[in-house]
Amino acid sequence: MSKSKLFFDVASSLDGFIAPEGMELAHANDPEFKRWMSQWTKLQNWVFHQQFFRKSLKLGDGGETGRDNRMLEETFNRTGVSIMGKRMFEGGERFWPEEAPFHTPVLVLTHHVREHWERPGGTTFYFVKDGIEAALAKARKAAGNRDIRIAGGANVIQQYLNAGFVDEFTIHYSPVFFGHGSPLFSATSLGLKVKIKEAVASKEVTHVTFVVEK
Amino acid sequence: MSKSKLFFDVASSLDGFIAPEGMELAHANDPEFKRWMSQWTKLQNWVFHQQFFRKSLKLGDGGETGRDNRMLEETFNRTGVSIMGKRMFEGGERFWPEEAPFHTPVLVLTHHVREHWERPGGTTFYFVKDGIEAALAKARKAAGNRDIRIAGGANVIQQYLNAGFVDEFTIHYSPVFFGHGSPLFSATSLGLKVKIKEAVASKEVTHVTFVVEK
Repeated sequence: MSKSKLFFDVASSLDGFIAPEGMELAHANDPEFKRWMSQWTKLQNWVFHQQFFRKSLKLGDGGETGRDNRMLEETFNRTGVSIMGKRMFEGGERFWPEEAPFHTPVLVLTHHVREHWERPGGTTFYFVKDGIEAALAKARKAAGNRDIRIAGGANVIQQYLNAGFVDEFTIHYSPVFFGHGSPLFSATSLGLKVKIKEAVASKEVTHVTFVVEK
Repeated sequence: MSKSKLFFDVASSLDGFIAPEGMELAHANDPEFKRWMSQWTKLQNWVFHQQFFRKSLKLGDGGETGRDNRMLEETFNRTGVSIMGKRMFEGGERFWPEEAPFHTPVLVLTHHVREHWERPGGTTFYFVKDGIEAALAKARKAAGNRDIRIAGGANVIQQYLNAGFVDEFTIHYSPVFFGHGSPLFSATSLGLKVKIKEAVASKEVTHVTFVVEK
């Protein structure tokens, strides 16, 4: 059986949202709507000036090379396959560069299967309509010795979390308030038992990794 | 003018609650109701085995003396006066030991003023009915060179926070999920601008202190 861990890794506002209100397909071309783009940028601020991110997205040379950067790089390197929801894919489909930033297979949970979609640089999107368990089984086959990342959104994370499939997760607590948006956790997370694996203090964000007790 | 800082210092569940569902006066004698007592104990778990806490509440010798313990002690020592809501007071009135754990003046926000109430060990409760600004003005006079702590509950913290009075705050992120309860932040915290002052990794809890930008 696969030793791959199932994990997620998200930035959260201090009031518990992983995406601001208004950040949805309908307003993709209207960044002023609820100022979603500005809010999103504040949430992810720490990422933009890391060398690994800049290199990956071909934003140019330079960037920080400290602990924050190493965390980004380690998370990328451990990921053999990603799982995401359809809405996240539809948003990303419009915003990712042609060379989508995954460079691995990506399983998209959907009700409407379409042909797989191969991008330059090693990312191929596969569309899975049999639910989260079937997608996880496919992911285990595709992951090899590496781990499986639930890319998002919040709803997909919660489904895997509340079904007891998640092994560990990292939250990057970012000093921003959204007021409204997509909450990371739902009331159904009540029964979860977790322990801190590691917490890392940084200037702009606090990283905490938790292990789910089974 | 007083140099005292206004701050709060609370433990939060990972899903953002500072008190579990069911922890209210009506169920004070029924710890099995929604298992509130067990949930509360998990939230505060890291505190119970710190030397400073054990000594303060006369729970016996021993206890940890590391960074967690120093944080508790520093928070106590910096506090010249506390402000709390009426519901927190009514709960505490039943549960605090005779020697209440504040050892300073405590201002209780209420609509029904009663005579101040002096406890052995230096805690005196004063009842203030003129609102949060009047209470803060009184607190500045009482604090001396020390700081002013908003003890809780969440509603009082939010009132001070959203009115722009809070200078800094510490959240102890505790690896527990409540599902429901008293959320630390409300949607009205949206406009707040904060920066990380310090994050401290620890085994059972992650401490993060934020400064509010004015």
